[in-house]
Amino acid sequence: MKKEKAIILFSGGLDSATTLFLAKRRNFLIKALIFDYGQKHKKEIKAAVKIAEIAKVDYRVVAVKIPWSKSSLTNKAKKVPESFSGKIPSTYVSGRNIIFLSYAASFAESIGAKAIFIGAHTQDYSGYPDCRKNFLEKFNQAINLGIVGKRIKLHYPLIDKNKKEIIQVGLKLGVPFKYTWSCYNGERYPCQKCDSCRFRINGFNQLGLKDPLLKS
Amino acid sequence: MKKEKAIILFSGGLDSATTLFLAKRRNFLIKALIFDYGQKHKKEIKAAVKIAEIAKVDYRVVAVKIPWSKSSLTNKAKKVPESFSGKIPSTYVSGRNIIFLSYAASFAESIGAKAIFIGAHTQDYSGYPDCRKNFLEKFNQAINLGIVGKRIKLHYPLIDKNKKEIIQVGLKLGVPFKYTWSCYNGERYPCQKCDSCRFRINGFNQLGLKDPLLKS
Repeated sequence: MKKEKAIILFSGGLDSATTLFLAKRRNFLIKALIFDYGQKHKKEIKAAVKIAEIAKVDYRVVAVKIPWSKSSLTNKAKKVPESFSGKIPSTYVSGRNIIFLSYAASFAESIGAKAIFIGAHTQDYSGYPDCRKNFLEKFNQAINLGIVGKRIKLHYPLIDKNKKEIIQVGLKLGVPFKYTWSCYNGERYPCQKCDSCRFRINGFNQLGLKDPLLKS
Repeated sequence: MKKEKAIILFSGGLDSATTLFLAKRRNFLIKALIFDYGQKHKKEIKAAVKIAEIAKVDYRVVAVKIPWSKSSLTNKAKKVPESFSGKIPSTYVSGRNIIFLSYAASFAESIGAKAIFIGAHTQDYSGYPDCRKNFLEKFNQAINLGIVGKRIKLHYPLIDKNKKEIIQVGLKLGVPFKYTWSCYNGERYPCQKCDSCRFRINGFNQLGLKDPLLKS
C-alpha cells in the first residue's frame, strides 16, 4: 500500500524529533521541513539534518526570514533569559508557528500531503500562544478553507504531554536524543541555564536519567 | 489623536492599491507589505513601491520564497494561461495568501497593529481558495488565538465587489491607476490576454473608460 505523506515541522529539538519518530511509526512517508528563520546559531539546523538522515526521511531546509523579529533567538545583541519570568519570554518569535504552519500548508497542498505534524505542547513551556491547542485547531480549520483539494489534518500528538512524558515516548521509539539540540545558545555544550535546557534536563532527571548532551 | 496602525498586503495591483487608499481614507497609519515571492517579473514590485511613495505611506519589501511553487507566476518555463478554464488556473500559488497573511500577523503583533487589510475578492477572479470570505474569517479567528496581546481585525473591504465596482471606488479615492500593474506578464505593456488583464480591461470598459496602462 502506498504510504500517506506527512509533513513535519522539524527543528532538531527533542520534541520535534520525537514527533518525527511518532509519525514514522504511524507509517507516514515523512517530509521534514527544517526552517532557517535567522536563528543566531545554526546548530539546531545541523542537528535536524543529522536526525533526518539517521531516520532516513526526506527533508528540506527552507529559508524563512522574519525581518521584524525582536526575539532573543534571532538578535545577536539580545541575551537569552536564564530564568522563567512567568510572562512571554524574549525568546518568543512573533508569529513563528503561524508562519511555519502556513509554509507547511502550502507544501502539503503542493505535494498532496494530507497530514502535518507539529511537536507543540504547552505543559512545560513558556506560554507561547502559537503552541496552544485552541490555536492549532482553529488554524487547521482555516487552512482547509484556504487550500485546493484534499483536506489536511494537523497532528499535535505531544500537546498535552510534559517533557518527562515526551522523553518517555521518545525512548520507546528509539529517538537519538544525543543528536537533538534544544539549547537556545549554540555553544559546544548546552548552557544548562536557558528555559529550553532547564526543561529538558529536568525531564531526563525526573526519569533518573542524564541528558545525553551534557558533559560526562 | 494617534492614528491606529494598519498593515496592507500590497501587490501594486489595482485591487490592493484601492485597498491601500481606502485604509488611508479611514485614517489608518499605513504599513504596506510588498512581497517578493519569486515572481517571474519584478514589475509589480516596482509598481507597488511607486504607489506607496505617491501615497506617502511606509512600506517594506519582504522576501518570501515558496520553493515548491509550481505556479506559472513563479516558473519561467510555464506560460501564463490566456483563457479562463473554469478550474483553478496555473497562476495559483499554493498557500500564497495563507503565507502572506501569516507574515502580516507576525508583523502586526511585532509593531502593535490591530488591523490588516487585504484586497481579496471573489466576484471576478479565478477561484483562488485563499481569497474566499470564509477562509479569511476563519484565518482571522486563528491568528487571534496564536498571537500575544491585542486582537487583530482582518479587513477585506473589496470582498464582494467586482472589478468594475473596485475601479469605481478607486476613482473616487484618487488611486493612481496608471501606476498600478496587474498583468501576469511583465512586458512593457499589459499583454491583454491573461486573466488579470482581461478582468481589468473589462472593468474599465464597463465604465466607458480605457485602462490607462494601454497604449493610446
